[in-house]
Amino acid sequence: MNKRYVGIDLGGTNLKLGLVTADGKMVARHSSPTEADRGPSHVLGRMADAVRDLCRSAGVDLADVAAVGAAAPGPLDTEAGVVIFAPNLPGWREVRLRDVLQQKLGRPVVVENDANAAGYGEFRCGAGRSVQNMIILTLGTGVGGGIILDGKMLRGVSDTGAELGHIVIHYGGRPCACGNRGCLEAYASATAVVTRTEEAIAAGDKSSLAGRKGFTCKDVFDAADAGDALAARIIEETAGYLAAGITSLLHVLNPEMVVLTGGMMGAGEPFLDRVRQHVRQAALERAWSVCEIRWSALGGDAGILGAALAAEAFDRTGKPA
Amino acid sequence: MNKRYVGIDLGGTNLKLGLVTADGKMVARHSSPTEADRGPSHVLGRMADAVRDLCRSAGVDLADVAAVGAAAPGPLDTEAGVVIFAPNLPGWREVRLRDVLQQKLGRPVVVENDANAAGYGEFRCGAGRSVQNMIILTLGTGVGGGIILDGKMLRGVSDTGAELGHIVIHYGGRPCACGNRGCLEAYASATAVVTRTEEAIAAGDKSSLAGRKGFTCKDVFDAADAGDALAARIIEETAGYLAAGITSLLHVLNPEMVVLTGGMMGAGEPFLDRVRQHVRQAALERAWSVCEIRWSALGGDAGILGAALAAEAFDRTGKPA
Repeated sequence: MNKRYVGIDLGGTNLKLGLVTADGKMVARHSSPTEADRGPSHVLGRMADAVRDLCRSAGVDLADVAAVGAAAPGPLDTEAGVVIFAPNLPGWREVRLRDVLQQKLGRPVVVENDANAAGYGEFRCGAGRSVQNMIILTLGTGVGGGIILDGKMLRGVSDTGAELGHIVIHYGGRPCACGNRGCLEAYASATAVVTRTEEAIAAGDKSSLAGRKGFTCKDVFDAADAGDALAARIIEETAGYLAAGITSLLHVLNPEMVVLTGGMMGAGEPFLDRVRQHVRQAALERAWSVCEIRWSALGGDAGILGAALAAEAFDRTGKPA
Repeated sequence: MNKRYVGIDLGGTNLKLGLVTADGKMVARHSSPTEADRGPSHVLGRMADAVRDLCRSAGVDLADVAAVGAAAPGPLDTEAGVVIFAPNLPGWREVRLRDVLQQKLGRPVVVENDANAAGYGEFRCGAGRSVQNMIILTLGTGVGGGIILDGKMLRGVSDTGAELGHIVIHYGGRPCACGNRGCLEAYASATAVVTRTEEAIAAGDKSSLAGRKGFTCKDVFDAADAGDALAARIIEETAGYLAAGITSLLHVLNPEMVVLTGGMMGAGEPFLDRVRQHVRQAALERAWSVCEIRWSALGGDAGILGAALAAEAFDRTGKPA
């Protein structure tokens, strides 16, 4: 019988789970609200229940699940399986996610940073499955990152590698949630696209979005498509900012592929083409000419699949993915 | 008998060589003008002659040299041992450095990028000998870089990894020799320190350096020490720019150590303290708190030693360092 793995993507709003084969096929899935406001113990209980529900609905005995992977927001101590702190999960400080889940489920558990897990998922069975060296940028509320080098996740010496939202692209520039200025996240997250548009409108720029409350990054892209000049300028600038970050990454790591994912995926190929164009202008030819820039192939499933396949790698090798 | 290796540091002005033991002790050294203006064939002949002279003066038979390492300015194809192009070496395009030297010397030769070699030297027997993950920044005419991860040199998929002078710290900022804008090199090389000072003087800033032709980066540091306000401001800004680049590198690679070297080493501990202070303000605590920032321990010998020890690693393992 083929081995089965469970991947859990622990988000602030939803718990998303999948039952996954060793070659990355999702044979069953499950989703339920995280109920994060009820605190860590409650959420840990819900995670264990969700794994059981997933197995039950798939007709698989939990004892036949070889290992469970959990993708969690960081910072983490992946070696100890501990969530050190999670801004979107109230009360999560020094939570022993791995040990508690292992105890509740009686199965081996591995814990990975959510952006790293998404990158590992794309590497194993998504956009990057033909390469050994790739970077992922998750463009959502913030900007997360994952790095695969020679087929291994780059974690760094204190699990702070691939914090790619916080590379500095504009010294002294826009303030970032991390406390620094000029971070990629402050310019190129989906949130930053909205904020930059709002600021331009407040400063007097004309736009079809003026006066509209609570518009999203997708609304800015849609407005640009519909001919809104401000929205078009913001989008073009965003492509330039993203390209600046990607250029830096190409000159540090010289990878084969950069995968973009998250809330900005709806922007499609035209936006990606603008990013590629900016990278070509900014980066050394020997770096950009070997590097493909593309959207995620797995979309919102990357975290689940990456977590499950990190569990598979651990089950197979006894070592972290 | 202990094995001996030769390291060659091929510079635009001088050829510097050392006879090196497997544990990184330089037992003899040699230096001669590169005579780069006479073209690649001439220089290749001089390199071979210099290796013979070094051995003769050390009383070592060339046949007893286990392998030779050459650190060359890039871009290179290290696998093929080819210098693709070297701005400071007239006529050097697609020069088969490894094969020609091997033929002339009858010894195995490995070729490494000069900044990578300096990083590898520091890693094996200098500032980084107690760590497995480190970055070097060479602050000279330009800014070069080298990265050691898990004890291996990071080369990237097309030998363009660790081109750390060309990470973008200020999107749209100062023009760089590479054609892009805002590169670390355009702000924090020794040359950029001089240029930024000259520009400020031309713009009307008062300084003891005003009217002085051909002053150097060291002169700017000396002027700052002597109380020159403009020089002091330029130096403090340089610390900030360098820290922005280091912050990005910490958030990509999360290393144990960053080593600075090159023409700016004369600036000493006070400057390094300013860089550290800026990094602490800019970077995530989990990244800076595990990372030591220090000056090179090997100084100008890092390239020779790194090249020799890359040859040693190849001799020992049959693989690149």
